[in-house]
Amino acid sequence: MKFSLMTLGTASALPTASRYPSAHILTVRERLFLIDCGESAQMQIRKAGVSLAKIDNILISHLHGDHIFGLFGLLSTLGMAGRQSPLYIYAPEKLSEILDFFKKEFGEGVKYEIVLNPVKCTAPVKIYENRVMEIFAFPLRHREETYGYLFREKQPKRNIVKEAIGKYDLSLHEIARLKEGEDIDKVSSAEVTYIPYIPRSFAYCSDTAPFKALPEWVAGVDLLYHEATFTGEYAELAKKTFHSTAADAARCAALAGAKRLVLGHFSSRFKSAAPILKEAKAIFKESYLAKEGAIFDIPLQKAKL
Amino acid sequence: MKFSLMTLGTASALPTASRYPSAHILTVRERLFLIDCGESAQMQIRKAGVSLAKIDNILISHLHGDHIFGLFGLLSTLGMAGRQSPLYIYAPEKLSEILDFFKKEFGEGVKYEIVLNPVKCTAPVKIYENRVMEIFAFPLRHREETYGYLFREKQPKRNIVKEAIGKYDLSLHEIARLKEGEDIDKVSSAEVTYIPYIPRSFAYCSDTAPFKALPEWVAGVDLLYHEATFTGEYAELAKKTFHSTAADAARCAALAGAKRLVLGHFSSRFKSAAPILKEAKAIFKESYLAKEGAIFDIPLQKAKL
Repeated sequence: MKFSLMTLGTASALPTASRYPSAHILTVRERLFLIDCGESAQMQIRKAGVSLAKIDNILISHLHGDHIFGLFGLLSTLGMAGRQSPLYIYAPEKLSEILDFFKKEFGEGVKYEIVLNPVKCTAPVKIYENRVMEIFAFPLRHREETYGYLFREKQPKRNIVKEAIGKYDLSLHEIARLKEGEDIDKVSSAEVTYIPYIPRSFAYCSDTAPFKALPEWVAGVDLLYHEATFTGEYAELAKKTFHSTAADAARCAALAGAKRLVLGHFSSRFKSAAPILKEAKAIFKESYLAKEGAIFDIPLQKAKL
Repeated sequence: MKFSLMTLGTASALPTASRYPSAHILTVRERLFLIDCGESAQMQIRKAGVSLAKIDNILISHLHGDHIFGLFGLLSTLGMAGRQSPLYIYAPEKLSEILDFFKKEFGEGVKYEIVLNPVKCTAPVKIYENRVMEIFAFPLRHREETYGYLFREKQPKRNIVKEAIGKYDLSLHEIARLKEGEDIDKVSSAEVTYIPYIPRSFAYCSDTAPFKALPEWVAGVDLLYHEATFTGEYAELAKKTFHSTAADAARCAALAGAKRLVLGHFSSRFKSAAPILKEAKAIFKESYLAKEGAIFDIPLQKAKL
């Protein structure tokens, strides 16, 4: 029942010797979601010991090179590795031009289907759903069409308290009704059932300038990835380039009531990201720096009976 | 008076956790030539502590992804770094389509000129020349249009033996004539001049199946980079995919009378490249494995007086 984020690249536009462009893997139970795909994503994924074959869904925030230049290499490699099953990409519609070009020039060995699900919204909208989780896209405020993504486990079905079965002589039908939250004559659902665990959530916000609706859209997440390209010293530059400072990111986390904040997308002018962390921590204590290969795990919390 | 090859990526089509796609830097004195530009080339260059700004010329062997997927990232980065001076690319003509697409989709911040010099030849042809060196392109035998490149220092001007100036009472005009190899009345050029150093050379052959003319075209090079995707065990596969085995590469080096051979472009099926080296060394003793970040230096050899 894993729910964890792996950060594979912490650079902004200019990579450095140790910072790679944006790429992240969110693992939700047995499913892997690749979020952004900067240059070297496929190598970073291999270095992390993760199987490329396990990725069925890629979510792209926007079409700046540092978020997509790893796509061609990854798509080629999947083809050469013999992938057959479709690959789903969620991204601004204009990615279709880039994918068409890829298929035309480099698509010879690509035998699997690349399915682009264009994202287009002005407020949060559900773009993906499976039995246990759902994903919402929401607009960010950048120099070009950009989306953030919110991953949420669904509310699990209520479990029955074992002792209650004998005590109330419950039939299978009655148990099923109680688990759905229905009360029966003998006893109320609330009395003999419980939520087995608390659903977990993660939101990805990169690249973006701060704006009022954002903390509302990611309210209460367990983990918030928020870009922090600059420190406050470069607030003007952040504003001009539609990026965030560490303080902007921390304020978003605080207003959203997030449990933890992961900072990334650091400008190459910062040899060390320590000043970014310091600035964020002053506002939001549970701030952490992304790092190539770092894992931010959200452990399953059992709900109290 | 440097002349050295740095290998930045030793993978073939499928990169691994430790092997990056093809990219190499040849340094000839103060000039840097990037040879092929696989994904992550810009990061590998930075890791090696080499300044991207120093690269004015890029030579591309062919348009398979593992040799060019690093171009978009590198070209973008040069733009963001404020490059103004033109960048020269030597490649099969079809790269123009890829460069046009790049400029259209990602060219906003690219203020420098990208000059494509299309390579097209069926035998060695000079494609570049400066005061001290020249580069020749020659066709390789691969699944698609592919070229190898030969880098050669020019024959240096003869130097005058200092003692001869007084001994023969030589005027500046006479010295200049002797240095050009002309004999004068007083003395012959051969008697009082010498070649200050032996010109150095390097050839790059990737990707290619072996063929008869190749050793002739790279005859006598100090350093030969030759792909060795497979060992002899996979000779059939090498033939089918128009690649070379280690033995093919070694035979080429031996027939060419090369001084040293660097093997690269290893299939991902080889966890260790040791069997490739072993196979090559049995045929050509001066065989070496390329490695990410390895430098193969060709020291300047003074000619004997």
